[in-house]
Formats: sequence, C-alpha cells, structure tokens
Amino acid sequence: MDYIEAISQSYDLVLKLEDRGKIANYIPELAKVGPDKFGVHITTVDQLKFGLGNYQEKFSIQSIAKVLSLCLAYKMQGEKIWSRLGVEPSGTGFNSLVQLETDNGIPRNPFINAGAMVIIDILLSNLGDPKMELLKFIRSLTNQQNIDYSRTISNSEKSYGYRNVALCNFIKSFGNLENEPEEVLNFYFDLCSLEASCEQLSELFLFLANNGKTKHDNTQILSLSKSKRMNALMQTCGFYDESGEFAFKVGLAGKSGVGGGIIAIHPNQYAIAVWSPKLNEKGNSFKGMRFLEEFTTLSQQSIF
Amino acid sequence: MDYIEAISQSYDLVLKLEDRGKIANYIPELAKVGPDKFGVHITTVDQLKFGLGNYQEKFSIQSIAKVLSLCLAYKMQGEKIWSRLGVEPSGTGFNSLVQLETDNGIPRNPFINAGAMVIIDILLSNLGDPKMELLKFIRSLTNQQNIDYSRTISNSEKSYGYRNVALCNFIKSFGNLENEPEEVLNFYFDLCSLEASCEQLSELFLFLANNGKTKHDNTQILSLSKSKRMNALMQTCGFYDESGEFAFKVGLAGKSGVGGGIIAIHPNQYAIAVWSPKLNEKGNSFKGMRFLEEFTTLSQQSIF
Amino acid sequence: MDYIEAISQSYDLVLKLEDRGKIANYIPELAKVGPDKFGVHITTVDQLKFGLGNYQEKFSIQSIAKVLSLCLAYKMQGEKIWSRLGVEPSGTGFNSLVQLETDNGIPRNPFINAGAMVIIDILLSNLGDPKMELLKFIRSLTNQQNIDYSRTISNSEKSYGYRNVALCNFIKSFGNLENEPEEVLNFYFDLCSLEASCEQLSELFLFLANNGKTKHDNTQILSLSKSKRMNALMQTCGFYDESGEFAFKVGLAGKSGVGGGIIAIHPNQYAIAVWSPKLNEKGNSFKGMRFLEEFTTLSQQSIF
Amino acid sequence: MDYIEAISQSYDLVLKLEDRGKIANYIPELAKVGPDKFGVHITTVDQLKFGLGNYQEKFSIQSIAKVLSLCLAYKMQGEKIWSRLGVEPSGTGFNSLVQLETDNGIPRNPFINAGAMVIIDILLSNLGDPKMELLKFIRSLTNQQNIDYSRTISNSEKSYGYRNVALCNFIKSFGNLENEPEEVLNFYFDLCSLEASCEQLSELFLFLANNGKTKHDNTQILSLSKSKRMNALMQTCGFYDESGEFAFKVGLAGKSGVGGGIIAIHPNQYAIAVWSPKLNEKGNSFKGMRFLEEFTTLSQQSIF
Repeated sequence: MDYIEAISQSYDLVLKLEDRGKIANYIPELAKVGPDKFGVHITTVDQLKFGLGNYQEKFSIQSIAKVLSLCLAYKMQGEKIWSRLGVEPSGTGFNSLVQLETDNGIPRNPFINAGAMVIIDILLSNLGDPKMELLKFIRSLTNQQNIDYSRTISNSEKSYGYRNVALCNFIKSFGNLENEPEEVLNFYFDLCSLEASCEQLSELFLFLANNGKTKHDNTQILSLSKSKRMNALMQTCGFYDESGEFAFKVGLAGKSGVGGGIIAIHPNQYAIAVWSPKLNEKGNSFKGMRFLEEFTTLSQQSIF
Repeated sequence: MDYIEAISQSYDLVLKLEDRGKIANYIPELAKVGPDKFGVHITTVDQLKFGLGNYQEKFSIQSIAKVLSLCLAYKMQGEKIWSRLGVEPSGTGFNSLVQLETDNGIPRNPFINAGAMVIIDILLSNLGDPKMELLKFIRSLTNQQNIDYSRTISNSEKSYGYRNVALCNFIKSFGNLENEPEEVLNFYFDLCSLEASCEQLSELFLFLANNGKTKHDNTQILSLSKSKRMNALMQTCGFYDESGEFAFKVGLAGKSGVGGGIIAIHPNQYAIAVWSPKLNEKGNSFKGMRFLEEFTTLSQQSIF
Repeated sequence: MDYIEAISQSYDLVLKLEDRGKIANYIPELAKVGPDKFGVHITTVDQLKFGLGNYQEKFSIQSIAKVLSLCLAYKMQGEKIWSRLGVEPSGTGFNSLVQLETDNGIPRNPFINAGAMVIIDILLSNLGDPKMELLKFIRSLTNQQNIDYSRTISNSEKSYGYRNVALCNFIKSFGNLENEPEEVLNFYFDLCSLEASCEQLSELFLFLANNGKTKHDNTQILSLSKSKRMNALMQTCGFYDESGEFAFKVGLAGKSGVGGGIIAIHPNQYAIAVWSPKLNEKGNSFKGMRFLEEFTTLSQQSIF
Repeated sequence: MDYIEAISQSYDLVLKLEDRGKIANYIPELAKVGPDKFGVHITTVDQLKFGLGNYQEKFSIQSIAKVLSLCLAYKMQGEKIWSRLGVEPSGTGFNSLVQLETDNGIPRNPFINAGAMVIIDILLSNLGDPKMELLKFIRSLTNQQNIDYSRTISNSEKSYGYRNVALCNFIKSFGNLENEPEEVLNFYFDLCSLEASCEQLSELFLFLANNGKTKHDNTQILSLSKSKRMNALMQTCGFYDESGEFAFKVGLAGKSGVGGGIIAIHPNQYAIAVWSPKLNEKGNSFKGMRFLEEFTTLSQQSIF
C-alpha cells in the first residue's frame, strides 16, 4: 500500500479509537491544549509531502527537541561527547535519579532528561550565544524561520520543574556539568519549549532519513556515519522504557515528547510526524503510537 | 565495497588487533576452548556464501540459541507469550535478579536468562518431547542434521550454574513458571549447550533476513510481522547492557553468546556469524564486536 | 506498675482489639493454625514466671530460631563470623535478593534469610551432626527436652520455598557458602520448623537478659560482651524493615517469626514471649507488636 | 571501672592509634580544621562533669544538630510528624536519593539529610522566626548563650551543596515539602553550621539521659515517652549505614556529624561527647567510634 493510502486508512482507524491516554498535567500550560488534536505529516526523500488533521498547527515538541540539540553538539564535538554520557537504553523512566546514583552521574543516553542536560552543558561551554545559535541551527534544517521557543511554556516548566532541578543538581554533584545548574536548567527548559507543527517536524528531521544531508539546500549536516548513529540512538532510546515496544510494534527510529508529538524516521525513505496530546502510562502519545503501528503494518515497511 | 571484500579487509584488520577480551571461565568446559579461534561466515538472501578462518568449526552457541527457542514458542503461541515477559531492554546485566524483584517475576525480555527460562517453560508445557522437538525445529531451518546439544557442556553448566538455579527458583516464587524449576533448568542448560559453526549459524538464521521464510525449502517459519519483530527484539535486547552500543556502532539486529559467537542480521540482505571466544567486560565477543563494526562501516550498509 | 499487672492489663486490652493482621499463607501448614491464638509469658532474672492465654501451647517459632543458631555459631567461632555477613539493618524485606546483588553475596545481618543461611553453613562446616547438636544446644539453655523440629512444617516449607532456594543458590553463586545449597536449605528449613511455647521461649532466651548466663544451671553460654552484642543485633535487625518501629514503640531487643511469635529481652530484667498468628504487612505479629507496646508503656520500662 | 578512669584509659589508648580516617573535604571550610583535634566530655545525671583534650573548643556539629531540630518539631507537633517521614534505618548512605524514589518522597528517618529537610520544613511552617526560635530552644537546654550558627560554614555549604539542592528539590517534587526548596535549604545549611564544644554538647543532650527533663532548670523538654523514642531513633538511625555497627560495638544511643563529633547517650546515666575530625569510610569519626567502643567496654556499661 502506498504511503498516502496507508496514512489515510491508519488516520481514520485511530481517529475513531477511544483515547485511553491522559494529557500531561505536570506542566500547567501543557494541560491547556485541546485533548482531541490529531495531526500527521510525512515528508519523503522523494519529496512527497502529505498531511492530515491538525498537521499545520504548532505544538510543544518537548523532548523531541533533545534530538536537535544532540545533533548540534555531536556535529561540533564528535565522538568525544560519549565520555560524558552513554548510548544505552536506560530501562527506567525518563526522569529517574536512581541510575545516576549507580552510574556516578553519567547518564545512560542523551534522551533521558539527565543526558539532555549534559548535552545542554556542552552547548553552553562551546557556543557564544547558545540559545540563539541552536535556534539558527534548527531553522537551517528546513528554512522554517517561524520555529521558536515559547516563553509561556518555558516559564510554566521553570515554576514546577522541581524534579528537573533535582536531576540537574545531582549531575553537578558528580562533577559532570561544567556550568552552573541554574544556567543549564534555564536553557533546558527553553529547549523543551520549542514549538513546531507536524509538517515542520517531518521536514526538520528529513536529513536523518537522507544520510545526514538536507533536501532543501543539500547541506551535509551530519556525516553518513553520524546520521546512522543518530537513528540507532533514537531507535534504542527514543521512547524511554517503551523503546523496545516501539521497535517491536512500529520498527522505526523515533522520538516522542510529552506534548504528544512523535517523530519517526525510516532511513532512506521518509520522516513522519504525528501529534495527539493524550499520553499512555509510559508518557508517549497513545494515539500517536497506535497510528504508527498501523501505518507501518499497512505500508509493510519497517527497518526490520 | 562488496561483502567479500568488506569481510576480507575487516577480518585481516581485526585478526591483528590485540585481543583485550577474556575467555568465559564460569563454566569450566568453555574455558577449554582455544582462545585464538576466529571465524566468520555470511549467507545472503541471494545465496552468496563466504567464510574465513575457523568458520566450519563448531562451538558452543550459548545464548544465541535463545533466539531459536523463542522462535518456536512464538510460532506456536503467538502474541500471548508477551503476557509473561516483556520486550524492553533491561538496562542491566544478563543474569540480574534485581529487576525481577521490582517487576514481580516478569522478565524484561526473552534474551536475558530469566526471559529465556519463561520461554523454556512455555515449550515444556506445550510440547510432548520438548528437547527433541526443539532440535527438530532447529535442524529444519537449514537441513543441518548434525546440529546437536553437547552433553559435556550442559553437564558442566549444571554443576556450576548456581546463579541460574537462583534465577529460576526466583521466577517460580512469583508464579511465572508452570513447570518445576528443576525441569526448566535442565532444558535451559541443554539449550545453551547447542553447538554450531559460523557457517551453520548464518544459514540457520537466514530466514530472519528473508521475511521469515527459509531459502533451502521455502517454508514460512514465521509470518512477515513476527519475523520483523524478532529482528527488532534482537536489535534492542540482543547484547544485554551493550545493546545500545551494538545498534550505535554496528547497526544490525543481532545476538551474542558467552561462547564468543555473534549472529547478526540485515533484513532483506544477509545473516552473518562471527566467532572469537574472548569476551569484553559486558560478556560479548571482543573481536566479534570489532569485526562487525568494521564490516558495516566498510560495506556502508546498516539498517539505519 | 509491676510486670504482672502490666501484662494483665495489656493482655486484656489487646485481646479485644480487632486483629487487622493476616495469617501467613505461603506455607500451607502454617495457615492451619487457629488465627485467634494469643499467649504471653514472662520470665525475669529474679525468677518471676507469669503467663496468660495460650502460653503453654507450642507453635512454629520460625525466624526466632535464627537467634539460637547464631548464638551457637558465635559461641563456637567468635568474631570471625562477621567476615561473611554484616551487623547492619537491611532497610528491606526479609527475603530480598536485591541487596545481595549489590553487596556481592554478603548478607547485611544474620536475621534476614540470607544471613541465617550463612550461619547454617558455618554450623554445617563445624559440627559433626549439626542438626542434632544444635537441638542439644537449644535444649541445654533451659533443660526443656521436648523442644524439637517439626517434620510436618519443614516438609511444607521444602515444597513451597522457591524463594529461599533462589536466595541460597544466589549466595552460593557469590562463593559465600562452603556447603551445597541443598544441604544448607535442608538444615535451614528444619531450623525454621522448631516449635516451642511462649513459656519455653521466655525461658530459652533468659540467658540473654542475664549477661549470657543461664539461670537454671548457671552456665555462661556467651561472654558478657557477646551477650550484649546479641541483644544489640536483635534490636537493630530483629524485625526486618520494621526494626526501627519496634525500637521506637517498644524499646526492647527482640525477634519475630512468621508463625506469629515474638521474643523480647530487657537486659538485666526479663525475657518475654508473645504469640498471635496474624501478621501485619511487614510480617510481624499484629497483636504481638501491640501487646509489647502497651506492656512497656504500662511498666514504664524500656532500654531507653 | 568508674567513668573518669574509663575515659582516661580510653583516651590515652585511642590518642596513640594511627588515625586511618580522612577529614571531610566536600565543604572547603571543614577541611581547614586541625586534623589532630581530639576531645571528649561526659556529663552524668548525677552531675559528674569531666573532659579531656580539646573538649572546650567549639567545632561544627553538623548532623548532630538534626537531633535538636527534631526535638523541637516533635515537641511542637507530636506524633503527627511521622506521617511525613519514617523511623526506620535506611540501610543506605546519608544522602541517597534512591530510596526517596522508591518511597515516593517519604524519607526513611529524620537523620538522613532528606528527613532533616522535612523536619526543617515543619519548623518553617510553624514558627514565626524559625532560625532564631530554634537557636533559643537549643540555648535553653543548657543556658549556653554562646552556641550559635556559623555564617562561614553555612556559606561554604551553600556554595558546594549541589547534592543537597538535588535532594531538597526531589522531595519537593513528590509534594512532601510545604515551603520552597530555597528556603528549606537555607535553614538546613544554617542548622548544619551550628558550633559547640564537647562540653557544651554533653550538657545540651543531658535531658535525653534524664527522661526528657533538663538538669539545670528542671524543665520537661519532652515527655518520658518522647524522650525514650528520641533515644531509640538515635540508636537505630544515628550513624547512617553504620548504625548497626555502633549498636553492636558501642551499645549506646548516639548521633554523629561530618565535623567529626559524636554525641552518645546512656539513658538514666549520662551524655558523652567526643570529637576527632578524621572520618572513616562511612562518614563517622574514626577515633570517636573507637573511643566510645573502648569506653563502654571498660566501663562495662551499655544499654544491652
């Protein structure tokens, strides 16, 4: 079945499903989003673009942004970043402090909160105007100038993010941050506040389906090897303690965010973004997961 | 670079490397193997067959056999087996009891020892002559009649396997085994004693690169969906707490054993087996891991 | 208030209380005991003896026996036993395997199951007829010849004790047992099957309230220093993860068993035993705990 | 042997011992203290007062102060404080975050850092000028007006206390703090900065050896029951994961601080304070522990 047909059928099927997820409520601002939003957009390396539902509406991409900050740090610093964090699935939730205590402050991977903070720390130490330069990097991936941080969201997180404050100070206590926790947290909350639509997301991430090169201006963002490794990381660690389930049922590299967004990549084929705000108990979009499962089943394509 | 050239160059390069691994010594019989053995064999869906070094010598495949017992249980019982074990990477070592205590006796995945025991329990409950029927199933994958259990190895494991006895009784105490621990352990130790050469291994596992269908007699062993899921499982969970590293550096679905063997699968392309007995600190073949990393780099092919 | 009055008032009060505990059901034989049994007996160093309720009925003393096996091993081997186990409260349940994994097979203290097994192992290695010699030692504490093991109970435990089999093999896998797990378990289950009445218990343990010396025949069982240390151990570790609560509310050295018995010691004053089979959620006798709390409040005596 | 003789002999013996401890260096100011300081002072309920060495020199009492803040909160709020923290030994180090994650933000006891923060939170919510009123309470225990906070020490802790910032925000994230982490930490660091000499400490804590009543002005600070419970808590939880060892070898209720001080209480007899800055690997004064062990052995007195 071709992509458009597979998306259309999957969309219709999942739209009717009872949504057993719950909207994220630990950040007051996130809880204000319409719970029934549902959008999807695919962009292929052959330049097919197709979307359904609320695919042009911007939402808080939250942890999906951790892939982008990692790309920039990885591009700048190369493999030496891995001396400060690992590439292993954590087997625990996204904000667990237990493993950090066992592992002496070395986060298991760059997609759990602790790992993302270490990446932020690397950007802070190596960029003159980190927040602006990261935004510039992100915008350059697709020439979408209107992608931006949301001050409302980041302020909301700053007021309630006690656990992230705990995590960040905990890493610092092990000596694995160069900058002060306050600065790291400040940038971290901004990073998580980035907003984009499904359409924009699928275009932003297309370079990872295209061996590290953008389609709109043919820039090699990451080398072939680094691009493959980014996909490997997303596949093994992109969904917290549901990463195995995602590989098992969907079979793509991907990353989710508590705003209900998911980006998924089929190397050499496409990037696809889906958004539905209600989350399953593991913190991943309930309908988003189901949609992608249907889609890869119907399109009979997965990386396995 | 074509497969033969990539294998040849990788083989030569890794052959010269200092082997920083250590031979497994917890089972006396395994410690008797020549530490410098090094063999590799590829079998492609196009029927290319090529090997180097000790690729025709049989060795103890150990945990690699857990993929085969899982295939049989999955084929027979379908998705309902997942009510008794998970599909998530564990984030801990292969024989950890900690997670079992937290998870009330539900193993995280079928490739850690605890999970393999639950699969064994399923086979025991559903087969008349489990040990013989499993062997028949394995032999049917490639018509290799001389693949067999090793009584010497299994007896050696039975005498020293206190930790596995602990694991098995622990699962039983949570009610997640139907059969008595003694029976489960008996079959488990036999399973791990299976012997095959690299050549045989790459042929045995070819059906997983071929959408679940054997090449030698065109039998659909597993459905397309189940075959993809087996590959996903191997990729996220096949190397214990080094699974992320394997995905990151090698980028194939695979499974290792403490005998020093590794099987790796590139869906739609090939199955490749490598054997070198000395293990790194995570319990995976030191040279085997390095070889596959070189090979996928040179052949510029990975699933990502 | 004097002891007799304090016991009488506490007994009456607790007798009327609703028993919110549950009878231990993991060993079928234990579940057969009358749930409303309630007995108490005090023996003082001044030779006051006083009991109420079912104080002459024998019951399964279970883990209380671990104090007696420890006394014998400690008497025989002295402080060197502490190279194989600790003297710290565990902070976890009585049969946790987690800490053993972290602590490389060294049990935190001699009263959790793992620690008791190490003590059993010491007795097995140092006695000719361990089971009989332990019984002789116990009987000598008070000349009670009819204290004995219960074959019914020990057989019942042997059939269902998967978790203890797991624990024992786990310790063995770390090299902290000299004998085979099967032998250790066999003796362990016999130890836990010992039966005594409240009257007998308070007499058996009187030597620990009397600086290590028996009253009936003035034998120095343990030195003053060792006797004090036994009491300290009971106080910090005698009630699993409720040891702090017991020290806080009762303020005596003591040890409980899942048969619903508790022995408590006030150094230089008395030994008191109480029995009521229904257990609170931590595995200690619900009414037994309440009785002792009332008793030390009314008698205005505790070691603090 | 009488107390003066036992102290003198123990002091001489331990003075000559090689000090295998290390001075606390995580707070720069603490590292400036003379490593060979060694002082001891006893105050008995019979009003014997006797000291040796640097017993009149003030030092940073650190965690010993947690007993005093707990006394005030317990006096004011009674048993209801235990709904927010436990009375169990933790089995882990003083600043572990692992247990908090397992226990949903309920600290195991009031003497680990997390528990002390909850107590601070209670004082903040119930006192008008918490810092001054706590000081007033402490001074009233003995009429020592020159006991005070040290701004130098508290500032030093505030600059390096990332782990405590982590702990405090972690508790807050579970909802177990009413006040903002910044306020709690501020007071917490002040509390730990309190300075007193051995002489002052033994007088401050004498009321706990005297059933809750001060000797200098006969004030009932805590009821008999509460006073006993404070002693029980110190005994089971006062030395982090060396509490069992302290009960086993010393046999008194006590509390240590990373400044190298220890206060120990023999109910109905005495309070004794010892100070020597170098710490063993568990964070307790190396010579202080040894001194108390000798002292209770020579005086042949312990609560057991």
